[in-house]
Amino acid sequence: MHKSYLLTPGPTPIPEAVAQAQARPIIHHRTPQFQKILKEAIEGLKYVFQTNNDVFILTSSGTGAMEAAVANLLSKGDTAITVEGGKFGERWTEICQAYGINCEVIKVEWGRAVEPERIKALLKNLGRKVKAVFTTLCETSTGVVNDIQAIGKIVKDTEAVLVVDAVSGLGAIPLLTDEWNCDVVVSGSQKGLMLPPGLGFITLSQKAWRLVQEAKSPRYYFDLNKAKKALAETDTPFTPAITLIIALVEVLRLIKEDGLENIFLRHKKMAEATRQAMKALGLELFASEAASDVVTAVKVPSGIDGEKLVKIMRDSYNVTIAGGQGELKGKIFRIAHMGYIEEFDIIVCISCLEKVLKQMGYRFELGQGVKAAQEVFLK
Amino acid sequence: MHKSYLLTPGPTPIPEAVAQAQARPIIHHRTPQFQKILKEAIEGLKYVFQTNNDVFILTSSGTGAMEAAVANLLSKGDTAITVEGGKFGERWTEICQAYGINCEVIKVEWGRAVEPERIKALLKNLGRKVKAVFTTLCETSTGVVNDIQAIGKIVKDTEAVLVVDAVSGLGAIPLLTDEWNCDVVVSGSQKGLMLPPGLGFITLSQKAWRLVQEAKSPRYYFDLNKAKKALAETDTPFTPAITLIIALVEVLRLIKEDGLENIFLRHKKMAEATRQAMKALGLELFASEAASDVVTAVKVPSGIDGEKLVKIMRDSYNVTIAGGQGELKGKIFRIAHMGYIEEFDIIVCISCLEKVLKQMGYRFELGQGVKAAQEVFLK
Repeated sequence: MHKSYLLTPGPTPIPEAVAQAQARPIIHHRTPQFQKILKEAIEGLKYVFQTNNDVFILTSSGTGAMEAAVANLLSKGDTAITVEGGKFGERWTEICQAYGINCEVIKVEWGRAVEPERIKALLKNLGRKVKAVFTTLCETSTGVVNDIQAIGKIVKDTEAVLVVDAVSGLGAIPLLTDEWNCDVVVSGSQKGLMLPPGLGFITLSQKAWRLVQEAKSPRYYFDLNKAKKALAETDTPFTPAITLIIALVEVLRLIKEDGLENIFLRHKKMAEATRQAMKALGLELFASEAASDVVTAVKVPSGIDGEKLVKIMRDSYNVTIAGGQGELKGKIFRIAHMGYIEEFDIIVCISCLEKVLKQMGYRFELGQGVKAAQEVFLK
Repeated sequence: MHKSYLLTPGPTPIPEAVAQAQARPIIHHRTPQFQKILKEAIEGLKYVFQTNNDVFILTSSGTGAMEAAVANLLSKGDTAITVEGGKFGERWTEICQAYGINCEVIKVEWGRAVEPERIKALLKNLGRKVKAVFTTLCETSTGVVNDIQAIGKIVKDTEAVLVVDAVSGLGAIPLLTDEWNCDVVVSGSQKGLMLPPGLGFITLSQKAWRLVQEAKSPRYYFDLNKAKKALAETDTPFTPAITLIIALVEVLRLIKEDGLENIFLRHKKMAEATRQAMKALGLELFASEAASDVVTAVKVPSGIDGEKLVKIMRDSYNVTIAGGQGELKGKIFRIAHMGYIEEFDIIVCISCLEKVLKQMGYRFELGQGVKAAQEVFLK
């Protein structure tokens, strides 16, 4: 009987009313009752994605939606640019390569954002053969946010479509799909959308749909032509994750009630408080320039075992944050302040972090991190 | 404020404790806490599948698991046999064709089971080039159950693997994966397993794994090599549908408590009562020879609008059964007695069917259907 606190970059905590919505009696998906729910879900998603195009709901994790983008846009032998500044940028390359796509990879130092000029130069260099540019809104593995708006301005004047992995960040930080010229945006349910994992989302511009018509990659479950045809009849091509979609409608109502602008401001504040707290504790941020407002990556101070730190916080005090992934394992820890996270969750997390750092022998004045966060919240 | 009754072949009703399990606080999937849950889920699934091989949990509908089978076993240009006796048999052909597989289709009259000898003859005819035989345990669209045991005996002596779509039927009627020589079995969560839709399942024999190593079809999200590697560390390659897996563990406990044998007997009784009731009402079963114990398909009597019948039952009396699909639209209706369905659910359904048939002008003696079911239940 202990209280638990979840500050990981997916899954994120679920509002109580949304969690309960999953437990409502199951209904059949080919009924007017469910069609009403599906319609409300799509309308709500269009608001969150800031697009006038349809948003398709897939029963899959965010990676399924990423694969849907690749399989529906491209054919074996096509050329695409992928931007790799972390684990999720690398995933674009991996998926493309699984489909026989010729990947031109822009490698970005982990912890930094891609310079949009590099994309511009490579597009100019490769010319019209580039069919798509695959990017990441927030690279969860490093805490970095990329300048999608600037990238959109570059890609829109070319033959290529801009594909954005917004699994991490959508509904938490600004992403104006239409205004920023994002042709394809994919996301998932378990991050900014405060839902359990299990739903993937994808939206496409007219420019992207033209590629879909030509693309020859094999696909069936993720075939967006099937999804489009079904949605025209307020239906899904295959049995959808009904209880998760019922919960989605609940969460979309909460988001609309709060308003995206207020939600973005709240994320900004949570991030600022977390960053100030880390600095007050003498800790260094991993993403120094382009730190996202959804997850803060922090360098593990020398002499401290980073994996042990995360484990003790979780196993001894029920405060779950994330460690580093891939090449960053043990070198950073990550505090997510995404979705249903508020002021006092941050205070709890920093208080726990201070406790464990003290126990592990890191030298600092107890309470300085919490105080720095309090000061941000008091403003 | 009206009571609702769901007798559709997926989704099926969810036991209350299982529905509530979804609403428990979300936990992170890369924790010892979730690993314990995942381990129990896999063990429980092995019991339900009656296999000693691992069962992989995919975040997708059953169709995603079907595609996983095709994409992981075969390469473009390979030859496979598909058995089409309804909408779901056709789905195997469609998926195979999407992957450039050369399909040898065995067309079976809708409403009949495939004669295993036809598979034997075609296998003999085509020889070693056939890599897989795709079949369906229970063809939900027609209510027919195929003799998988007999088919398994035939396929096991060839180079081909036997793939069984058990989305409809698993956990409700016998399917002995190992004993019957089924190399690959796929299923989904929203039928015999009494869960919401959103999980797909797949298990593979050693013979099937050999094909997986050779197969060149593009795949990433459904790549079973990735799933196998992750499962060896009690993990999933991508964020799983955590709340559905928590509910899965609950349902597997209930299934184990009841015992598969008892569950199969219950389904047999529900089906028998439904069939006797239909006969007592002068209605003709669509699947006369190989009627499954999970869904009963009934011919709409002449002069009655079949689609209207289903609609009135649902919209006026909240009793949801299914109509016909594809070429059977309006010609049959289907009563599912799968999963969490008991004696009095059948009585309610038949009572409602009688009421609406009476209102629509079909001539019969009121109460005869219900009585026939009661007689079965009294035995």
